[in-house]
Amino acid sequence: MKFTASYIAEAIRGRLRGQATLEVERLVDPRQLESNTVAVLFTKDIPKEIPADALIVVPEGTSIPDRVNAIEVPNPKLAFARLTKLFHYQKELRGIHETAVVSPSAQISEDSYIGAYSVIGENVKIGSGVRIMEHVVVMDGVEIGNNTVIYPNTVIYPDVVIGKDCIIHSGCVLGSDGFGFVLSEEGNQEKVYHLGKVLIKDRVEIGANTTIDRAVLGETIIDTDVKIDNLVQIAHNVRVGRSTVIASQAGIAGSSQIGQYCMIGGQVGIADHLTIGDKVALGAQSGVNKNITKPGVYLGTPALELHRTLRIWSILQKLPELYKKLLRFLDAQNEQR
Amino acid sequence: MKFTASYIAEAIRGRLRGQATLEVERLVDPRQLESNTVAVLFTKDIPKEIPADALIVVPEGTSIPDRVNAIEVPNPKLAFARLTKLFHYQKELRGIHETAVVSPSAQISEDSYIGAYSVIGENVKIGSGVRIMEHVVVMDGVEIGNNTVIYPNTVIYPDVVIGKDCIIHSGCVLGSDGFGFVLSEEGNQEKVYHLGKVLIKDRVEIGANTTIDRAVLGETIIDTDVKIDNLVQIAHNVRVGRSTVIASQAGIAGSSQIGQYCMIGGQVGIADHLTIGDKVALGAQSGVNKNITKPGVYLGTPALELHRTLRIWSILQKLPELYKKLLRFLDAQNEQR
Amino acid sequence: MKFTASYIAEAIRGRLRGQATLEVERLVDPRQLESNTVAVLFTKDIPKEIPADALIVVPEGTSIPDRVNAIEVPNPKLAFARLTKLFHYQKELRGIHETAVVSPSAQISEDSYIGAYSVIGENVKIGSGVRIMEHVVVMDGVEIGNNTVIYPNTVIYPDVVIGKDCIIHSGCVLGSDGFGFVLSEEGNQEKVYHLGKVLIKDRVEIGANTTIDRAVLGETIIDTDVKIDNLVQIAHNVRVGRSTVIASQAGIAGSSQIGQYCMIGGQVGIADHLTIGDKVALGAQSGVNKNITKPGVYLGTPALELHRTLRIWSILQKLPELYKKLLRFLDAQNEQR
Repeated sequence: MKFTASYIAEAIRGRLRGQATLEVERLVDPRQLESNTVAVLFTKDIPKEIPADALIVVPEGTSIPDRVNAIEVPNPKLAFARLTKLFHYQKELRGIHETAVVSPSAQISEDSYIGAYSVIGENVKIGSGVRIMEHVVVMDGVEIGNNTVIYPNTVIYPDVVIGKDCIIHSGCVLGSDGFGFVLSEEGNQEKVYHLGKVLIKDRVEIGANTTIDRAVLGETIIDTDVKIDNLVQIAHNVRVGRSTVIASQAGIAGSSQIGQYCMIGGQVGIADHLTIGDKVALGAQSGVNKNITKPGVYLGTPALELHRTLRIWSILQKLPELYKKLLRFLDAQNEQR
Repeated sequence: MKFTASYIAEAIRGRLRGQATLEVERLVDPRQLESNTVAVLFTKDIPKEIPADALIVVPEGTSIPDRVNAIEVPNPKLAFARLTKLFHYQKELRGIHETAVVSPSAQISEDSYIGAYSVIGENVKIGSGVRIMEHVVVMDGVEIGNNTVIYPNTVIYPDVVIGKDCIIHSGCVLGSDGFGFVLSEEGNQEKVYHLGKVLIKDRVEIGANTTIDRAVLGETIIDTDVKIDNLVQIAHNVRVGRSTVIASQAGIAGSSQIGQYCMIGGQVGIADHLTIGDKVALGAQSGVNKNITKPGVYLGTPALELHRTLRIWSILQKLPELYKKLLRFLDAQNEQR
Repeated sequence: MKFTASYIAEAIRGRLRGQATLEVERLVDPRQLESNTVAVLFTKDIPKEIPADALIVVPEGTSIPDRVNAIEVPNPKLAFARLTKLFHYQKELRGIHETAVVSPSAQISEDSYIGAYSVIGENVKIGSGVRIMEHVVVMDGVEIGNNTVIYPNTVIYPDVVIGKDCIIHSGCVLGSDGFGFVLSEEGNQEKVYHLGKVLIKDRVEIGANTTIDRAVLGETIIDTDVKIDNLVQIAHNVRVGRSTVIASQAGIAGSSQIGQYCMIGGQVGIADHLTIGDKVALGAQSGVNKNITKPGVYLGTPALELHRTLRIWSILQKLPELYKKLLRFLDAQNEQR
């Protein structure tokens, strides 16, 4: 892959300062800059030695040395994301592998790809440009929108609906039964069968080995542009709002509703039947047992506003000395009496 | 699917108040009640408008308006579970898919099903009415009891024994090696190979992507009617007692023994070599580092009796103000002296 | 399997006290000792009745009754590990199963094994004595070193490099994209594509359903002799040092570096961009939000030195009574004024 500096400037929506025809072949870490590479600097500190035929992307207003080729951007992190997209290689894939087992009633766009040993159930609908890699099991009645990619070994239970431009990584299980049991008169756990669905909207990404359970009745809903990391658990009837991101090993219990543009940290647990409003950020390992309506950053178990949990943690760390002092004081008081 | 009100009343062990021949086709949320549907009300509050040809299930003693068709039950949650079972559709499946790889020494009941691309190892024994879906790997010497269902992409290591009427969801790994290493004289981690087994008794359900390790020697045992959610870790030599339920992302470390009818919350961690008695409930995210012998509800890390942890949490939340007051007071005392 | 006492003594590097030609067939728990079995005692307490044709392994300096066959060892745990290796049965496997889909450009040693339905991508290199079990997906450009074993249903993304003598359990996903998104001007989460790799060195073991993400640029590195349990998350650009062990459900966030010979407990969370030095042990469920440079044992969220967290926990458990006493005292003070 080769791109000119001017092509890159346009792709990342930046302003080019330097040679428009310079060609770069690789995106590198700033410490690895060499001829024909490009790197992104997240601060205005520029390394001393930059090869004359390298390219750097810098925050707007950075002072750029002579003879250095640079692109100024308002948001270097966003420029970096766009550069990774540019340099990302995606193999051409099309057609149905001869070993795939496809139900005659499945409707599959001709320009889609079904990989080796994948199994496509009855009445499945697969849109245009979809890439279903090896060993994916798509059970009856599933729908998959245009340009979605599903990595190997993911299982999609019946009637799950997945939108356009999604990326589902390996080992996910979408649409398994939720966890519901009721103790019977005879002392047995009787199963609540799950008659609902999972609805995953457009541009959702789901990390490896994540599980999303189907609803009891109705739908478990993952809204547009939601991004979910590895090993996350989403229980039955949960709703996750637009563009929310959920980090690894977090778990959301049954029927809870998460707002838009939330950031759920790693290993966070959210109890069942809660409502979390828009733009709520939850620090890693937080445990949420109450509704949160106000946007802001929360932390701890139970989760409180960030500054408050940090204050409590700071006092806790002084507790041994404080406790000693206090005991000594209370003893002295008792003696005086 | 269509059932008469009288059929339903019998199936859920309730008392019919209304038209015995009314037919219902779907189980719905009370807000979605319409003609020929049935909904369960968990309280005695009844919605104002109930269609004359709909059916509601209500707690015993609910006052039922004229012309409303109802079934009274002692336990609406249990009735709901039984209704979900009634309305749950299970496809007819039988025989061995032509792509399955089955060892000649495996014994498989004629009325069982082996799905596409599943692999059945040597000397495997599969009972009557078993459904092994697509892409399941059943390694040598495994035994699977009657009517058990195994969803796609689950792997069962050698010599694991699974009882009757179990449901194993997708992506489970049953019988993998436990985690045991000993530092050698040369500073290398030497592996403890796992020579034991996993024994899963009858009516056990295991959620997606859960892992259960085999014993070092002897057996890891999951007793009758145990229900395990998604992404749970059960380590080597653990024993889980009858009808205990374990929520998502909980982990039980090596050799711990869990009693009967326990409820282990989501993301709970139980340390190794502990004994948890019968009827112990552990709140989400609890961390258990001691034996618990008394039935009851426990919460927190380290886990204490519920009321005590809630009390501590409540004081913790006042800690910043208390600390300020206390410092001021101690300062004042010092000045006085 | 049958081994003589003298053969076993040599294998576990111990000193034989008893009959050299005694043959044992099974490794058992000390309570199950019978003829022709061997058990390891971890303390110097010896069971009263030991069959004359059984063998025990004991700590050096244990007083051994007459007619008991024993092997003295400096480290019984290490001897136990070596015995499990001795008694561990591994099936002979070699060749490529007829159902495997292997790219013509893949280089596979003749003495390696590729199981049923496994898929081997372009330019993959597989060393000598490698065992790739059923349903493994090895994507393009992957390299796998000599004698490594990969259990069923694991997925290896492109260009991952795995060393010699590794064991990768079922359901792992190695090399999936890391979790990186940047909010765009239009309010969408734009994906950071991951152009880096995963490098797994020699003698690494990885538990079932564990996920290891590829680097953004550069490499995620799992160093020699690292042992990782089930359901662990290793994020992009993490480095884990030699012989470190990581227990189940732990998670290490992006770019953090873990030293050598560390012990990471179950459900531990380590935040991103941190450095953990050598020989650091982290108790279960700990949350680490700062660098740790000093070797030692740490516990809690946030993680502190073990004794300090235990002290804080002990005071916390007295907090309700302390709080009551304190309130009463402060009230009394106010009244006096």
